[in-house]
Amino acid sequence: MSNTYGTLFRITTFGESHGPAVGVVIDGCPAGLAISIDEIQTALDRRRPGQSDITTPRKEEDKVTILSGIFEGITTGTPIALVVNNKDQHSHDYSHIQHAFRPSHADYTYTAKYGTRDYRGGGRSSARETVARVAAGAVAAKLLQQYGITINGYVSQVGSIKLRKHYSKLDFGKIDSNKVRCPDGTVAAKMIGLIEDARNSLDTIGGVVTCVIQGAPVGLGEPVFDKLHAELGKAMLSINAVKGFEYGSGFEGVKLRGSEHNDEFYTDAQGNVKTRTNHSGGIQGGISNGQDIYFNVAFKPVATILQPQTTINDAGEEVTLQGKGRHDPCVLPRAVPIVDAMAALVLADFILRQKANKV
Amino acid sequence: MSNTYGTLFRITTFGESHGPAVGVVIDGCPAGLAISIDEIQTALDRRRPGQSDITTPRKEEDKVTILSGIFEGITTGTPIALVVNNKDQHSHDYSHIQHAFRPSHADYTYTAKYGTRDYRGGGRSSARETVARVAAGAVAAKLLQQYGITINGYVSQVGSIKLRKHYSKLDFGKIDSNKVRCPDGTVAAKMIGLIEDARNSLDTIGGVVTCVIQGAPVGLGEPVFDKLHAELGKAMLSINAVKGFEYGSGFEGVKLRGSEHNDEFYTDAQGNVKTRTNHSGGIQGGISNGQDIYFNVAFKPVATILQPQTTINDAGEEVTLQGKGRHDPCVLPRAVPIVDAMAALVLADFILRQKANKV
Amino acid sequence: MSNTYGTLFRITTFGESHGPAVGVVIDGCPAGLAISIDEIQTALDRRRPGQSDITTPRKEEDKVTILSGIFEGITTGTPIALVVNNKDQHSHDYSHIQHAFRPSHADYTYTAKYGTRDYRGGGRSSARETVARVAAGAVAAKLLQQYGITINGYVSQVGSIKLRKHYSKLDFGKIDSNKVRCPDGTVAAKMIGLIEDARNSLDTIGGVVTCVIQGAPVGLGEPVFDKLHAELGKAMLSINAVKGFEYGSGFEGVKLRGSEHNDEFYTDAQGNVKTRTNHSGGIQGGISNGQDIYFNVAFKPVATILQPQTTINDAGEEVTLQGKGRHDPCVLPRAVPIVDAMAALVLADFILRQKANKV
Amino acid sequence: MSNTYGTLFRITTFGESHGPAVGVVIDGCPAGLAISIDEIQTALDRRRPGQSDITTPRKEEDKVTILSGIFEGITTGTPIALVVNNKDQHSHDYSHIQHAFRPSHADYTYTAKYGTRDYRGGGRSSARETVARVAAGAVAAKLLQQYGITINGYVSQVGSIKLRKHYSKLDFGKIDSNKVRCPDGTVAAKMIGLIEDARNSLDTIGGVVTCVIQGAPVGLGEPVFDKLHAELGKAMLSINAVKGFEYGSGFEGVKLRGSEHNDEFYTDAQGNVKTRTNHSGGIQGGISNGQDIYFNVAFKPVATILQPQTTINDAGEEVTLQGKGRHDPCVLPRAVPIVDAMAALVLADFILRQKANKV
Repeated sequence: MSNTYGTLFRITTFGESHGPAVGVVIDGCPAGLAISIDEIQTALDRRRPGQSDITTPRKEEDKVTILSGIFEGITTGTPIALVVNNKDQHSHDYSHIQHAFRPSHADYTYTAKYGTRDYRGGGRSSARETVARVAAGAVAAKLLQQYGITINGYVSQVGSIKLRKHYSKLDFGKIDSNKVRCPDGTVAAKMIGLIEDARNSLDTIGGVVTCVIQGAPVGLGEPVFDKLHAELGKAMLSINAVKGFEYGSGFEGVKLRGSEHNDEFYTDAQGNVKTRTNHSGGIQGGISNGQDIYFNVAFKPVATILQPQTTINDAGEEVTLQGKGRHDPCVLPRAVPIVDAMAALVLADFILRQKANKV
Repeated sequence: MSNTYGTLFRITTFGESHGPAVGVVIDGCPAGLAISIDEIQTALDRRRPGQSDITTPRKEEDKVTILSGIFEGITTGTPIALVVNNKDQHSHDYSHIQHAFRPSHADYTYTAKYGTRDYRGGGRSSARETVARVAAGAVAAKLLQQYGITINGYVSQVGSIKLRKHYSKLDFGKIDSNKVRCPDGTVAAKMIGLIEDARNSLDTIGGVVTCVIQGAPVGLGEPVFDKLHAELGKAMLSINAVKGFEYGSGFEGVKLRGSEHNDEFYTDAQGNVKTRTNHSGGIQGGISNGQDIYFNVAFKPVATILQPQTTINDAGEEVTLQGKGRHDPCVLPRAVPIVDAMAALVLADFILRQKANKV
Repeated sequence: MSNTYGTLFRITTFGESHGPAVGVVIDGCPAGLAISIDEIQTALDRRRPGQSDITTPRKEEDKVTILSGIFEGITTGTPIALVVNNKDQHSHDYSHIQHAFRPSHADYTYTAKYGTRDYRGGGRSSARETVARVAAGAVAAKLLQQYGITINGYVSQVGSIKLRKHYSKLDFGKIDSNKVRCPDGTVAAKMIGLIEDARNSLDTIGGVVTCVIQGAPVGLGEPVFDKLHAELGKAMLSINAVKGFEYGSGFEGVKLRGSEHNDEFYTDAQGNVKTRTNHSGGIQGGISNGQDIYFNVAFKPVATILQPQTTINDAGEEVTLQGKGRHDPCVLPRAVPIVDAMAALVLADFILRQKANKV
Repeated sequence: MSNTYGTLFRITTFGESHGPAVGVVIDGCPAGLAISIDEIQTALDRRRPGQSDITTPRKEEDKVTILSGIFEGITTGTPIALVVNNKDQHSHDYSHIQHAFRPSHADYTYTAKYGTRDYRGGGRSSARETVARVAAGAVAAKLLQQYGITINGYVSQVGSIKLRKHYSKLDFGKIDSNKVRCPDGTVAAKMIGLIEDARNSLDTIGGVVTCVIQGAPVGLGEPVFDKLHAELGKAMLSINAVKGFEYGSGFEGVKLRGSEHNDEFYTDAQGNVKTRTNHSGGIQGGISNGQDIYFNVAFKPVATILQPQTTINDAGEEVTLQGKGRHDPCVLPRAVPIVDAMAALVLADFILRQKANKV
C-alpha cells in the first residue's frame, strides 16, 4: 500500500467506501495559513454525489470535520487531520458482489494481492477515497493563492464530443455554470445529451478533463525524476479511472517538426521572458518556465453498468452480474474538482521544495 | 533536485553531459543475483550514439565500470555503483550557447531555478543522463528475468506514420532488425524515410514508443498513489522529451461505452483467470491482473535543429542561434532502450514491494 | 513537521493535546492479520493517565475507534486509521501559559519555529501525542507475535535508584505487578518511595527504561544508515523527554578492552549459532544476530513542576509561572508502554524490509 | 540496504573496503555554494589512516575526485558525486577470514542476511565506508558556514580516562594539536598512554566523542519523529562501533529533580532569549532553542585484535582466528571527523527543511 503522496506538503489518506469514514492527514502545510472549514467544504461540495441528474443520485452530505492542525483559524505547522463520515455504511446488501469479480473493477486484483478484500462497494478501491484528496486539495489551493497561482480544470471531451476551442478563448468563470462543467454552453449541451443517452441506455461513457494552471512562478519542478510534468502525470494517473496524461502539445505534438514545435523566447515590453508559442505547456526540462501550464487527463467509461455482464466468482465459476444502485453514467463532471485538487497538491509541494534550491 | 527513483529498488543518478562521468548507484538490489558487466554493456550499446545513420553520428563508446556491489559476479545486497566516463569533455566550444537560452531546451529554466548552470551541452538536463538509467535498467531486467517477466519496447509512430498492427501480431525478435526499432519492416522503411527527410531538411521529428510487459504476476502496484500505471507514467514522463503517457485503451478509450470497454473475466482451460479483452492494459485498480501490460509514450521532436532560430540571451536581448555539431534527427530509435530500462526499474521495485503485503 | 515514521510499516500521527482528537494512520500493515479493538485498547490502558497514585490523577478513558483498514477483524492491507477523542478539551483555562514560555518545555521553540502555537496544554508537543504511537504499536506487536518476537520494557532506574540485576534474572511477568513497572518488588518499592517523595515536594524525577527484545530472527536491520540500533535509537529519542539511548554494553562498554568486549561465536547442541557473551546487544554491523536485543532509554524529570518558576513571556518580559493541574511526578511507569510500542514499530518495519533482501 | 541519508540534503554512499572505490552522491545541495576540492580533501585528511602512531599504520592517500555537480568551483544544484579510489585492493590475502565469522564483526550477520558477502576486509561493513560520509560532510559544513554554524567534536574519554572539564572551558583550536584529538593536553597525554598500552598488549580500547554545535539558529528540527536530537542520534548510531548517544544532561540527568533540571529562560542585555542553564543541550521539543547543542557518542573497543580468538566458521565448526595486518588500537582519534561530518549533514538537512515551515 502507498497512501502517502508528496515530499514536503504530504498527504496520507485513509478510509473505505462503506467503512465509518474517509479522511486525510496533511503533514507539512506551512504554519500561518488562514483557512476556514467552509473553504474545505466548498471544494467537497463540487465533488459531492447527487449534485445533478447526470451524476449519481446518491445523497451524501460529505460534511468535513477538522481534528487537528488548525487553531483559531490558522494552520499551526502541525498535521491537519480532516475526516468525512460515511453515511449509511451498514444499510446495503453486498451479497451479490461478495464473491464475484466485477469486470474492469479492482475486485480481482485486490483479492489476489491481499488475499482478502472489503467487498462493500469497492472498499478502498472506490472513488470515494478521492473525498480525502479534494479536502486536502482545498488546503493546498489556499496556499497557492498566497503565490497568485490559479488552477482551472474543465471537461473538454465526453465520448467523441470534443471542445475544440483553445483554453485562452474560454471563460473559466463559466465552468460551474452547467452541470457537465464545460465552460462552452453549446458544447456542454451536447455533452449532457450524450451522457443522458448513455444513462438511458443503462450504460456509461468516458471523457477528458483539461486543466490550466496560471500564475506559477518560474522554477517549479525537481529534475531529473520529479519533473513537474512527471509528478503531475503521476498524480493524475493515481485518480480512479484515469487512462492517460499529456501536457503541452502531447500526443499530437509528435507529428510536428522541431522547427514547428520549438517555442521561441522573447522579452516582452515589461521585460518578462516569454515564449511566442507554448507547445512546451509551460514546462521545460521538467521545470515551470512562467508560461501557462496545461494538460489533459483521459477517464475511461465507468465500469459499473446497469446491464447484465458475464464474469467469474472467487471460485473461478462463471456468474452473471448486474449493477444495482445509483451510479454515475459519466465521472467527468465530478472528476473536475479531483483533478484540480491533485494539481494543487503537486504545485504546493513544489512551491515548498523550491525554497531549498539556492544558498 | 531529485535524482533518486524507486522505493525499495532505488537508483540515484549523477553526471553532466560534459563533466568527467555519468553514473548511477543502485540501492536495494537483492543479494544473490548473477550479473556480468557484459549484460550491462549490451544494454548501453543499444542506447549508444553513432549506432546508425539516423541517429547522431557522435562516436562514444560508453564503457561501463562497476565500482561496488557485485563480488565474484554476484550482487551482494550492497549498493551497486556503475560509472561511464564521458569522452572529450573539454574539446568543444560552447561560447555560442553560454549566455543564450536555446528554444525548448532547459537553459532558461535551469538558470532561473538554480541561478547558475553548466552550459556545456545541456549539462544535467542533457539526455546523456539516461546512460545511467539504462545501466541500472539492465540490472533490474536481470532481476525480472528470475520472475519470467519480459519487456519489449518498439517504435510505433514517427511523425504521422503509425504502425497500426496490434502488438500481438508483431515479432518482438525483429525490433532490433532495423535501425528505427520498429518490428514491422514495411512501416520501418517508411519511418526511416521520414527521419532521413527531416534530417536532410536540417529538422527533427517526434514519435511514439509502445512498450509491452509480459509475464508479470498478478498483484504488482501499490494503491492508492503508487498505482502500477501511475509509477509507469511518472517514470516515462521523467525521460527527456516525453510529452504523454497512456496505457491500455488510453485516450481513444474515452470514446467507448462502459459495455464496450469492460473486460469480462473468464477461467481458461488451465484454470487461470483471464479477461476476454484487455482495454485495462493489464492493470485494474492500479494493480497488475496477469494480462499483458502495454502503454504508449509520446516523444516530441528534438529541440536542437541545424537551422537558425531567434531567441534571447541571459541579458534578455534577442539573439540568433544555430545548432552545431552532431545531433539526432529523431530520438525514437535510441529512446526504446530507455523506455525499456525505466519499465524494468518500475517493475523491479514493485516486485520487491509486493513481498511485504501479506502476513 | 515530520509526523510519519517507518519505511514499509509506516505510521502518521496527528492531534493536539487539547484538540478534538489524537490519532494515527498505519500504512503498510500486511493484509490478513487478525486484530481486535480490545488488543489495541489494552495497550492504551497501560499508558492511560490516572492508573495509579504515582501518575497523573487526570481521568481519561482514551477509548480507541477504528475508522478503516480492519474488516471483519482482519487487516485488509489498506490504511488503518485509529482515533482517540480527547475529553473536555474546552474546559481548562490556559490564560496563564498563553503568552509565557514554560522552562524546558517546547513553548518557545514552537513559537519561534512556526510563528504561532496551540498553547493549550502543550498542543502538539504534549506527550499526549504518544497515545497514537501506543495504538499503532499494538498492531505492530500483533504482527511480531506471528514471528515469535516479544518485547519487554521495564523501569530499571528512578533517580539514583537502579535495578542492578541482569535482565535474565528477572520475571517479565511481574512488570505490571506494581505501579512503577519494575519487575523486582524490592527495588520497585524504593522507586515508588522516591517518586512519592518527589511528588510530595511538588517536584519530579527522571529515570531509565530498559527494553529487551527476544525471538528476533537473524538479519533485521538495513545498513549502512538504517542500522537496527540506529532506528531503535531514533525511535526512542523521538519520545517526549528522552535524553539518551544505549544498547548492549553502551556507555559502560567503552571502558573495556577489545579482548574483554568481543563476543565469541559458538554452535550450540542444537546447531544454532550463538555468542558466549552479548556485549553486542544482539546487533552486529547494524543487523540482529539472533541473540537478545537490549537497550536503555533515559528520561529526564518532567518539566512541569508545581512550584513557582521564573521565566519570560513572548514579549521577552520576566514572569513567574506555577504549574497547575494534575501532572505526573515521574513519567517512567507510563513510559514503558510507549517504549514497547516504538520498539514494536521498528521491528515490524524491519521484518517487512527484510523480505526484499534476497532474490 | 539503506545507503541514503537525509530528506532534502541527501547523501547516498557506496563502496566496499577492498573494491575499486568508495564514494558518495550528494543530492539536494543548494546551488551557488563555492567549494573547492581542497576543502573536501582537508576533511578526508583528518580521517586518513596512518596519520599517527596511535592509529593504523596503513598508508592510504584517500585522494578525492569530483565527478559532477560542481562547475567552475560552484555547486550547480545537480548531484555532487565524489569518489575515492581504494589502494591495493587486490594485494591482500583474505583466505583466513573467507569462511570464518570474526567475533563482534558483521561477518555472520551479513552472511545470514544476504546469503553472501564480500569477505575482503569487512567489505561494506568496514569503517572505510565513512570516507564517503566525511567527504559529504565537508560540503555540508561549507553550507553551514554560510549560516554561522560551527561544529567541534573532540575525544572526551578513552577507556576510563575522562576529560571532566566543561566544554566551555576548552579551546577548540587545540583539538588537532595532539594525536588523540583531546583539547586538554594533560588528559590527552594520559589517553595516549592508555592507547599505547592497549596497542602494546595487542588489544584495543573504546571511548567517547563529545560534539558541540554553536551558532545554530532557533527552529531546527522537525517533530514529532524527526526531532533534532533524534536525527543526531540516528546519524551517530549509524557510525561503525557506536554503542550510545546522549545529549544535554543525558543519562546523568535522570538523577535530577525537575526543579534542578529545568532551564529558566531570560532575556539578555541584547534582547536575546537565553536559558540560565543548558541541561536541554540546546534542544527543546526536538527543536533547537539557540543555545549550544552538545552530545556524547560512545564507541566500543575495536573488534579486530592481534590476539588469537576462538570462533566458528560458516560450517559451524570452531576455529581460531588471529587478527593480521595494521589496525587501529582505538578508533577515537579518527572518529572525531566522522562525528563532525554526520553532525554537519544533519544540520544542513534541517537548515533546508526549516525553509518550508512558514507561509
